[in-house]
Amino acid sequence: MPVFKAEQLHKSGLAIFEAAGASKKEAQQVMDLLVEANLVGHDSHGVIRIPSYIDLILQGRTKFGAKVEVVKETPTTALVNGNWGFGQIVGAETMKIAIDKARRNNVGMVATYNCQHIGRMADYALMAAAQDMIGYCCVNANPQVAPFGGMQRMFNQSPLGWAIPAGEEPPFVLDISTSVSAGGKIAVARSKGEKLPPGYIIDKEGRPSVDPEDYYKGGAGLPMGGSVGYKGFGLAMVVDVLAGLLSERGAAYLAGERGQGIFQMAINIAAFKPIGEFKKEMDGLLREVKNSKVAPGSKEILLPGEPERRTKETRRAKGIDIPQRTWDELVETGKKVKVDITKYGCHRN
Amino acid sequence: MPVFKAEQLHKSGLAIFEAAGASKKEAQQVMDLLVEANLVGHDSHGVIRIPSYIDLILQGRTKFGAKVEVVKETPTTALVNGNWGFGQIVGAETMKIAIDKARRNNVGMVATYNCQHIGRMADYALMAAAQDMIGYCCVNANPQVAPFGGMQRMFNQSPLGWAIPAGEEPPFVLDISTSVSAGGKIAVARSKGEKLPPGYIIDKEGRPSVDPEDYYKGGAGLPMGGSVGYKGFGLAMVVDVLAGLLSERGAAYLAGERGQGIFQMAINIAAFKPIGEFKKEMDGLLREVKNSKVAPGSKEILLPGEPERRTKETRRAKGIDIPQRTWDELVETGKKVKVDITKYGCHRN
Repeated sequence: MPVFKAEQLHKSGLAIFEAAGASKKEAQQVMDLLVEANLVGHDSHGVIRIPSYIDLILQGRTKFGAKVEVVKETPTTALVNGNWGFGQIVGAETMKIAIDKARRNNVGMVATYNCQHIGRMADYALMAAAQDMIGYCCVNANPQVAPFGGMQRMFNQSPLGWAIPAGEEPPFVLDISTSVSAGGKIAVARSKGEKLPPGYIIDKEGRPSVDPEDYYKGGAGLPMGGSVGYKGFGLAMVVDVLAGLLSERGAAYLAGERGQGIFQMAINIAAFKPIGEFKKEMDGLLREVKNSKVAPGSKEILLPGEPERRTKETRRAKGIDIPQRTWDELVETGKKVKVDITKYGCHRN
Repeated sequence: MPVFKAEQLHKSGLAIFEAAGASKKEAQQVMDLLVEANLVGHDSHGVIRIPSYIDLILQGRTKFGAKVEVVKETPTTALVNGNWGFGQIVGAETMKIAIDKARRNNVGMVATYNCQHIGRMADYALMAAAQDMIGYCCVNANPQVAPFGGMQRMFNQSPLGWAIPAGEEPPFVLDISTSVSAGGKIAVARSKGEKLPPGYIIDKEGRPSVDPEDYYKGGAGLPMGGSVGYKGFGLAMVVDVLAGLLSERGAAYLAGERGQGIFQMAINIAAFKPIGEFKKEMDGLLREVKNSKVAPGSKEILLPGEPERRTKETRRAKGIDIPQRTWDELVETGKKVKVDITKYGCHRN
């Protein structure tokens, strides 16, 4: 499998987006988050997305230089039209609005529509944590997950992310889908020809399946929780309302070219407690949990965000494995916009 | 098993709390929510709690006539000292503060400490929904659930509730623990001498167990998610921060006589979209999900809140089954405060 340094992937994507017509700044913002996803180990949200992003550009569905437009506003809330800019750029702009409102009024909530795929929730939630705030981000999009007891795709994987600052410890960061599995993991299993663990999906007849192909042939994802899957189902419905109904995107079941609806929130911790005190307590909590007794069969307790930080360290040092097929697709995508990215690829098999 | 009308249980509890020294108003507020829990089928949060509530009163840990005290405030947030009033009364007062802030500033967030058991999250979230707002409530308390991969009790069951108003349909209401099972369900299985489904708990050695006794003998509950239990673990940690760290209660692992920490939020929907439009979309979403295809082996799709509404209808009509042992305990508790509640008990076995 070809191995790349993060910088090589970044340069390759930059060249493609700029050749497609994006400004250097836009291309950089998008590539920063795509490469970050690869670095932390979530390849499903990394450079593998470039071909589909370029397709949306070529179809005129992603617009260059789009400015986010606040269409309804109060000191604590905003409804924002993303005007079909790159998801990563829209999502960062709107999170800044939420943070700015929280700075002035201690709480900020922003709902956004007309927006393409924004990537990982963690990136936006962490923007708030960096400002000594609690950050939250969730999105809806087209339906892919069945309700508990159902078999029809009604909800998106409905991911949500929380970030909470700590003192000496790294921030707490949770980025999960409310379904058992993110769509990207099913895609990865399919591309590797592997089976899925039981409980991830059903086939088009609503029967449990471990074959990722069944998901694409009319099947659906399942809400998290297993036998208590009504919990994941309920949480998905909350995400659908916050990100879909509060924005103008609409509920997930209203499929079509509606992109993602976003809901973001920032909470100013200092409104409740001096930030230094909070961070000390947060350090205590993180350490206490980390150092609590490990169950038999488990090697250690991994805090939310910890696997990602470790993978990032390893991949910074040893490079990022990119499947040959993904790299070939990137090269082909480059050709579409008349740029040769093979010069950035110093890859070994 | 003795069967009671809701009114009989209500009168019995009222008599006990008044005899213990509560004002009629206080006793009524507490009993309204305890009997509501029985009516909707969550007996673990119903009159079975009266003996422990009375114990706290007799120990001087629950105070009559306590007034909630706002100790830190901004137009959108409040930190509240519950002054050890009844949880149900403190929780309703603080939710009113959140709703009032949301009415003025579109968002209200309240963190509360020095508070006893507040009961079900749904009751408080629904207060906001009744005001055309999205309501949220979560609490932490002493540790009972292990982290994913761990075996030590570090988190509370960390329940959370969301309520969202609809138009012609009943409101959406989700009330779940972020662990596989609420503590009450384990207690119910124990009292009936039944086994638990696999995946609910571990024993004191960290091994999976289906014997509820193991939970009480040094075992722990497990975070929701099964093989992806890091999701429930992460969500529990967020609840612990919101309800424990933002308030002065402190994290769950700081056990002792700290009662519950509460975090409540109200979001004014009209800040994002005309409420009539929102409710129409909400009706559409609820109906679409309800009427979507049912999976084989499942009878129907139950919306969050639907099982509770059905049980309430049945129990209003047919009465509430209360185990003999629970009724006996209530009678004994009555004797402690010198009141005979057998006159309210027209029960048949």
